[in-house]
Amino acid sequence: MKILIVNAGSSSLKYQLIDMDNEQTLAKGLVERIGMAENGHHECKVNGEKIVDWAEDKIVDHVQGCKMMLAALTDAEKGAVKSMDEISAVGHRVLHGGSKFSESMIINDEVIAAIEENIPLGPLHNPANLMGIKACQEVMPSTPMVAVFDTAFHQTMPPKAYMYGLPYEIYEKHHVRRYGFHGTSHRFVSKRTAEFLGKKPEDLRIITAHLGNGSSLAAVEYGKCVDTSMGLTPLEGVLMGTRSGNLDPAVVEFVCDKENLTVGQMLNLCNKKSGLLGISGISNDMRDVDNAAKEGHPRAQLARDMLVYGIRKYIGSYAAAMNGVDVIVFTAGIGENNYGLREDIMAGFEYMGAKLDKEKNAALAWPNVHEAVISADDSKVLICVIPTNEEIAIARDTLELVSK
Amino acid sequence: MKILIVNAGSSSLKYQLIDMDNEQTLAKGLVERIGMAENGHHECKVNGEKIVDWAEDKIVDHVQGCKMMLAALTDAEKGAVKSMDEISAVGHRVLHGGSKFSESMIINDEVIAAIEENIPLGPLHNPANLMGIKACQEVMPSTPMVAVFDTAFHQTMPPKAYMYGLPYEIYEKHHVRRYGFHGTSHRFVSKRTAEFLGKKPEDLRIITAHLGNGSSLAAVEYGKCVDTSMGLTPLEGVLMGTRSGNLDPAVVEFVCDKENLTVGQMLNLCNKKSGLLGISGISNDMRDVDNAAKEGHPRAQLARDMLVYGIRKYIGSYAAAMNGVDVIVFTAGIGENNYGLREDIMAGFEYMGAKLDKEKNAALAWPNVHEAVISADDSKVLICVIPTNEEIAIARDTLELVSK
Repeated sequence: MKILIVNAGSSSLKYQLIDMDNEQTLAKGLVERIGMAENGHHECKVNGEKIVDWAEDKIVDHVQGCKMMLAALTDAEKGAVKSMDEISAVGHRVLHGGSKFSESMIINDEVIAAIEENIPLGPLHNPANLMGIKACQEVMPSTPMVAVFDTAFHQTMPPKAYMYGLPYEIYEKHHVRRYGFHGTSHRFVSKRTAEFLGKKPEDLRIITAHLGNGSSLAAVEYGKCVDTSMGLTPLEGVLMGTRSGNLDPAVVEFVCDKENLTVGQMLNLCNKKSGLLGISGISNDMRDVDNAAKEGHPRAQLARDMLVYGIRKYIGSYAAAMNGVDVIVFTAGIGENNYGLREDIMAGFEYMGAKLDKEKNAALAWPNVHEAVISADDSKVLICVIPTNEEIAIARDTLELVSK
Repeated sequence: MKILIVNAGSSSLKYQLIDMDNEQTLAKGLVERIGMAENGHHECKVNGEKIVDWAEDKIVDHVQGCKMMLAALTDAEKGAVKSMDEISAVGHRVLHGGSKFSESMIINDEVIAAIEENIPLGPLHNPANLMGIKACQEVMPSTPMVAVFDTAFHQTMPPKAYMYGLPYEIYEKHHVRRYGFHGTSHRFVSKRTAEFLGKKPEDLRIITAHLGNGSSLAAVEYGKCVDTSMGLTPLEGVLMGTRSGNLDPAVVEFVCDKENLTVGQMLNLCNKKSGLLGISGISNDMRDVDNAAKEGHPRAQLARDMLVYGIRKYIGSYAAAMNGVDVIVFTAGIGENNYGLREDIMAGFEYMGAKLDKEKNAALAWPNVHEAVISADDSKVLICVIPTNEEIAIARDTLELVSK
């Protein structure tokens, strides 16, 4: 069975066709600059070979983007499939499921209405996700579709973890609470960690550190998420590529006043010009920041120190949240590939029984990245690297739901 | 030697006269509603006996307030001293020393100018503190005065702990960073804890939990503060009486939009209508919330759970910040008096070697509160209760500086 995974942004359509018999990726593509006046772009690879690298003046909308995607996938000569009928289902990544969805859902009118309802919580992503869904429905009207929510895995958090300390009415009226993101990754990685260790998720307290351009940590207690670092939006938590992470809320007012900004402009600053980029002044890419730090750039070093320190504090706090921890697992771009950062993050955790094996850790230097235990043999807490794969997670959910 | 301690608010003057020979409080008073149209009030107790309980139409300014204070202290019949000359020095509590002051200072023109400079960081408190200083200088022109800053003890934090993830220029231009508060208490309690245990502060990693109507925690590593939960302002950190504590910064924009608030109104909501009060809907006083929770009030229980959980997470993160912890110490109104809360906070910390002795802890039930170790005999991490005394700390600094 072949399943298509779609991740629609406001002007883009990322897709992947997966053969579920062996979970291999058959084709992978990206339609970019949808709706923009010029320079629309579409690239598609089948079995690693670029079969489309197309630029045109304008891609009018997501429907046109979907048609281009299907044309590439079913290309008579180089396509991954012969006809659209070979695609059994489409799995859509959806950012914000609010409090409504604690699992993936077959898309029907009700689900679409609920994604619409959650637009205030995901004002940039949910409308884009909906455009992707509706465009796919238009060009593949009889193919079943599934929505997989970035927030769903975190819906098991208890109120003490998801509530903010604001007047309760603000929660009741506007659903202001911690939702968390990267849920599909935290779920995939925590499950896969247990499997890899030959254990059951129900027997483990796992801290998952998804560290990428956006980063979040989660406390997964006996298979269920009990806390996560991102909040109402993906801004909260540790330092990220361009996002500030945690602030004294009063900082928002203070900077608005001093810089004469609207609150919207200030939040834009927090989301787009802060984080590694804002502190280092160099780049939002950890590799650049790392290199500059090695060469003695003080602000790059500071950005790196802040990131390491922030992650350490979350690990400490999630151990407290679960009355201890059995496994700490690193994943995503930075978490998988940056062994130096892992070494610094895990230094000095012996007091709670977690001890890194520096050699095992360094042996996983990029590009030699794979599933591994990197803690010392006498470490009570296991430390692991488990590469994430959100597309496979979405495809599995889709397969499961359409097979029912 | 007798030292007067003054804590000036925008419309109040709290004072205490301390005999430094035995550190006993000779007199204690409060002038209230200064500058208001009516109902000015002054109360003064000498040796526990109320010698003044005075209400009049109006107290015009802090100078009048200071004169009333001095009149009470030197009252011929019931005063604590015969004349003003017996007061050797005045110690003033000052909220915000910014990055300028890492210790207490003899007040001179430069120090006054620096407190003025820091008004943007403490817009409510610093002007009031200055009014108190200037009024005292006017009525006691030849008495030396000392400023003791709430932020000073935290000035040893490293940049990775005090920087926010905003563009670096925001820090350079506007000094936006974590400062921390309750520094006088964290310093007093961490030092006293070491003394009480017969150890040196330089040998201990201490987490101080100052839990009162405002609450903050600090990580005090070998005598120096390396992190604290309050930030640019006293809003950041755990849930407090009326303050929200930590929020996703994006919540500020979100609620401004939904409730049609200015960012100033929103921050007012976070500071004055949130926290225990906002969540429980009952009270900002932990005792009321506790009682209501015991009677089954769900929102009171939630507020209590959030407070306990937030404090637990800080303890976990500060253990990580210091690569372990030797002593956890509770202080201030809630920290000293609420043994039930301490029991819940410390439950499940065995994974890092901290185990409460429930009986020892319960033996300290209010009003039987005193310095004590409340951890189990086999607990690697000591858990203590050490009552705070900011007035004594201010008086000691004042004595030390004026004796030089």
